[in-house]
Amino acid sequence: MSEFKPKKSVALSGVVAGNTALCSVGKSGNDLHYRGFDIKDLAQGCEFEEVAHLLIHGTLPNQLELKSYKMKLAKSRGLSDAMKIVLESIPKTAHPMDVLRTYVSFLGCESPEAADHSEAGVREAADRLIASYSSALLYWFHFSNSERRIVVDSAEDSIGGHFLHLLHGQRPSQAWIKAMHVSLILYAEHEFNASTFTSRVIAGTGSDLYSAITGGIGALRGPKHGGANEVALEIMRRYTDPDEAQADIENRISNKEVIIGFGHPVYTIEDPRSDIIKAIAAELSTDEDSLKLYGIAQRIAKVMWDTKKMFPNLDWFSAVAYDAMEIPLLLFTPIFVLSRTTGWSAHVMEQRVDGKIIRPTANYIGPDDLALTPIESR
Amino acid sequence: MSEFKPKKSVALSGVVAGNTALCSVGKSGNDLHYRGFDIKDLAQGCEFEEVAHLLIHGTLPNQLELKSYKMKLAKSRGLSDAMKIVLESIPKTAHPMDVLRTYVSFLGCESPEAADHSEAGVREAADRLIASYSSALLYWFHFSNSERRIVVDSAEDSIGGHFLHLLHGQRPSQAWIKAMHVSLILYAEHEFNASTFTSRVIAGTGSDLYSAITGGIGALRGPKHGGANEVALEIMRRYTDPDEAQADIENRISNKEVIIGFGHPVYTIEDPRSDIIKAIAAELSTDEDSLKLYGIAQRIAKVMWDTKKMFPNLDWFSAVAYDAMEIPLLLFTPIFVLSRTTGWSAHVMEQRVDGKIIRPTANYIGPDDLALTPIESR
Repeated sequence: MSEFKPKKSVALSGVVAGNTALCSVGKSGNDLHYRGFDIKDLAQGCEFEEVAHLLIHGTLPNQLELKSYKMKLAKSRGLSDAMKIVLESIPKTAHPMDVLRTYVSFLGCESPEAADHSEAGVREAADRLIASYSSALLYWFHFSNSERRIVVDSAEDSIGGHFLHLLHGQRPSQAWIKAMHVSLILYAEHEFNASTFTSRVIAGTGSDLYSAITGGIGALRGPKHGGANEVALEIMRRYTDPDEAQADIENRISNKEVIIGFGHPVYTIEDPRSDIIKAIAAELSTDEDSLKLYGIAQRIAKVMWDTKKMFPNLDWFSAVAYDAMEIPLLLFTPIFVLSRTTGWSAHVMEQRVDGKIIRPTANYIGPDDLALTPIESR
Repeated sequence: MSEFKPKKSVALSGVVAGNTALCSVGKSGNDLHYRGFDIKDLAQGCEFEEVAHLLIHGTLPNQLELKSYKMKLAKSRGLSDAMKIVLESIPKTAHPMDVLRTYVSFLGCESPEAADHSEAGVREAADRLIASYSSALLYWFHFSNSERRIVVDSAEDSIGGHFLHLLHGQRPSQAWIKAMHVSLILYAEHEFNASTFTSRVIAGTGSDLYSAITGGIGALRGPKHGGANEVALEIMRRYTDPDEAQADIENRISNKEVIIGFGHPVYTIEDPRSDIIKAIAAELSTDEDSLKLYGIAQRIAKVMWDTKKMFPNLDWFSAVAYDAMEIPLLLFTPIFVLSRTTGWSAHVMEQRVDGKIIRPTANYIGPDDLALTPIESR
């Protein structure tokens, strides 16, 4: 086991804020397990819906259970008329993460959680969310960009397939569907990261699931968290070839610039998810443009390792894979939401069983005991 | 200084999660200061807009500044046509906290924060929020309950007055306006409570103000946090007179039931805000119904002190004051939002200057290294 050093850029680094049976991360410096299963096994051997079932419902499904679960999810893709009106009212210029945040918040008005906060209720709501996110996001996307009111159903039997189908308006290839399964599995759960911790703090006050997920989306939006895969692509796109990338990145490193997409607050040796998504990115990069981007991404990763001994995290090659599937940059982090809602929901259930409110304290650095001057004399 | 004992019902109790110059709380067991000013002085000597200016803009205004600030706020009460459509789409059955959460989330789609995240931008957005919350909330309230599209302007020069005017459709009395000032001042800021901490965790990822406030509202909604003043009134309303209340509460205490509205995770001696709002509640309780409620509240407080040495917190007598102003139960916690958004916004600015992501760790209690059975064999 590698020794843990609290990171200066992270508040509460290494401080235990609660128990979890959902995820262990970074124990050996580079491992990740969901409910005891190695991420490498899950990414290689499962569809995303199996992992969603593992996190939300507690077990890996057998074939019959998986089939029935996927059918249930496929039936939960619809949007109410009121929801469509709300989505049509959101301007084209909005960030898609703000659209998803508003979607969840409005759904909490339309279909609030039952007052008893039962686990069955959380599971039902979480399933509906992961099933319908793509519908909401892409309904808004197409309406705001081209005033088309798309049908939010598809013949796809998977969440990733449904997303690609609604985005591109046609059936995606098996390779792309497989890539979505892997990507969604890798992003599903990661212990007490900032967005999951947000969901737990909200759940800790006795609040509802929709509030917890809304908060999680808000936290994930930041460039130091889920927004990183967007920044990663922006970095890669700055360059026309690997040599140019290398020269500029070396220059930026010598100017002490932080390069988003490398290093991790928890992993010390490598991010175990990176090689998995890198292989997917390599498989998907078959035309000139995507081969160029993959080459640039690979070269920057080599420079970061050679000069800083920093490894790429999940976000780095995810950006390459998404770009190869012609997913617009601003929809990258919303895919993270489709996936991580499984983890967030499981943590909400766990925090409720735990029963604690999360309330740290602060170190006061302001002035003491100021006399209040009446307004007439200020 | 009283000795601090971490509370078992609170995770991270007593653990420092960051610095603040905004608030010191419970240092002597029963004190509260905003930027160094004693809450008792602020509640007695200020209007809410002075305290909002102190928290959002950093200083107590002089007379000219206050006048100009109040005029600016009064001009920021409007809602866009798109926003009205969204509010009209929210069903009557929705919880008003979910309505406000959706309002803020949608406003973040309509008028997102500028990418530079300047403090000027946060201040502008925070002012708009506190000015317009009542407009959004009561537009929805009247439309969903009676299909009336109210005008969301009023001649009132204060946020509390604007709220009461839109709620009741007429000018409120000076006594009620004064009561709103005091109540809003008392609820404005409270260090690293769960909702403020939520806002800081969200801001720590580099996310935007609207995400942070949306998360804060979600956390505040819980009955262990802002939702407590609603529960407090529900408790008082169970009884027809003080004697009945005393008998039942004593019985519940002996059955180890937790009585919401008493005790506090930070204060050990008393909640310094309680006597202030209790005096307001006493002043407002002039007719038969409100005198009865006040009597019941007072008796339960006596029982709690005599048997458990537990003191009422701010929520307890706030419920009496709000009920005396004929504010519906479900609008209690939204008033908390109007007020606490000042503190949340100031904390967002502070967390950004601090520059840290907030990311604790967890104690893993699940199974280790499970072998993945292929789905065919499960």
